[in-house]
Amino acid sequence: MVRDETTPRLISPRVPFGELNLDKPLKLGIMASGSGSNFEAVAQAIADGQLNAQIQVLIYNNPDAKAAWRAQQWGVPAVLCNHREYGSREDLDRSIVEALQRHQVEWVVMAGWMRVVTPTLIDAFPDKIINIHPSLLPSFKGVRAVEQALEAGVKIAGCTVHLVLPEVDTGPILLQAAVPVFPDDTHQTLHSRIQTQEHLVLPQAIALAAQVNS
Amino acid sequence: MVRDETTPRLISPRVPFGELNLDKPLKLGIMASGSGSNFEAVAQAIADGQLNAQIQVLIYNNPDAKAAWRAQQWGVPAVLCNHREYGSREDLDRSIVEALQRHQVEWVVMAGWMRVVTPTLIDAFPDKIINIHPSLLPSFKGVRAVEQALEAGVKIAGCTVHLVLPEVDTGPILLQAAVPVFPDDTHQTLHSRIQTQEHLVLPQAIALAAQVNS
Repeated sequence: MVRDETTPRLISPRVPFGELNLDKPLKLGIMASGSGSNFEAVAQAIADGQLNAQIQVLIYNNPDAKAAWRAQQWGVPAVLCNHREYGSREDLDRSIVEALQRHQVEWVVMAGWMRVVTPTLIDAFPDKIINIHPSLLPSFKGVRAVEQALEAGVKIAGCTVHLVLPEVDTGPILLQAAVPVFPDDTHQTLHSRIQTQEHLVLPQAIALAAQVNS
Repeated sequence: MVRDETTPRLISPRVPFGELNLDKPLKLGIMASGSGSNFEAVAQAIADGQLNAQIQVLIYNNPDAKAAWRAQQWGVPAVLCNHREYGSREDLDRSIVEALQRHQVEWVVMAGWMRVVTPTLIDAFPDKIINIHPSLLPSFKGVRAVEQALEAGVKIAGCTVHLVLPEVDTGPILLQAAVPVFPDDTHQTLHSRIQTQEHLVLPQAIALAAQVNS
């Protein structure tokens, strides 16, 4: 069985960055709940000159999220919006919107944000919120997407970057990437393989979204 | 945008034929409603020595299906089971089962069979019916799978070979293959791209199924 965890898998449509003309840097706000590896991928793509953008702020909801540490390394302001400290989802989202606006964010990137967002957030950035989800949507919406894929026994898994609509994990698809599932995969090995692709497609999808809706 | 309609896309798991040890030729019955291009692919894989099998019979349900003509070219008996001539799905399936059994079929391959099958057929060949469906299941079950994918705006489409359970387009997945969707794709161009992959994975999935359940 052929295995190569590092080379790109199927990504489509394959739009070279060079074809994307962005006149001025996109002002991004990134929302992350976990390790922030997608934050890192976007920051690196910017540093490498592949994506004409600035990360204005990182919003994180877990006090010990590694994402906050990464933001510090990159010199990006990090704002903790701890969901445990708010009475409702709307209250949390109001606080997030306030932080994003305070940092002049134009585009919001949900990069591993594990909370359901409300119209309070969505309506504040119409058609300018991007989400990345670890499945080939419309398969396996919602939480535990990687586990769902393993339980279903699919042989191909992947990730999807899409614009956010009020329903969970819906909205126009920007990019998808596919990876093989191997018979002995665990949640960890499959998730890791999917994340490698997430890091490739997310910066590209941001550029694509900005070009379509600038 | 990179385009290549002929090279293999992502197929997983990639099991070389050589790893599949089939002691004796599988006795296949193939069911087809349309052009029979998957019938052709299986016949060719057998002729090329990639799949140790014999096609015992082709079952077709449309009098003018090109599949019947292909069967004739390959010297395979073709039996017309015209659904319009039966009062119920069960009656049709009883006639199909009779034809399959008369030709000593062990494994049934639904290769573009456009009729819903009943327990009459499924119970006659338990765990030995294979279906190929033009989507990455569980996305886009049922009819018009390619149109459903285009309407959903997915960027990656594909096909799935699975064992058949009584529910439509469910059952353990044997193999899947993924293809890109391009912005200007029509049903015809996307379907053609998917079919190219179907022809690659179907013979391999048959060998895989036979090895797992021999």
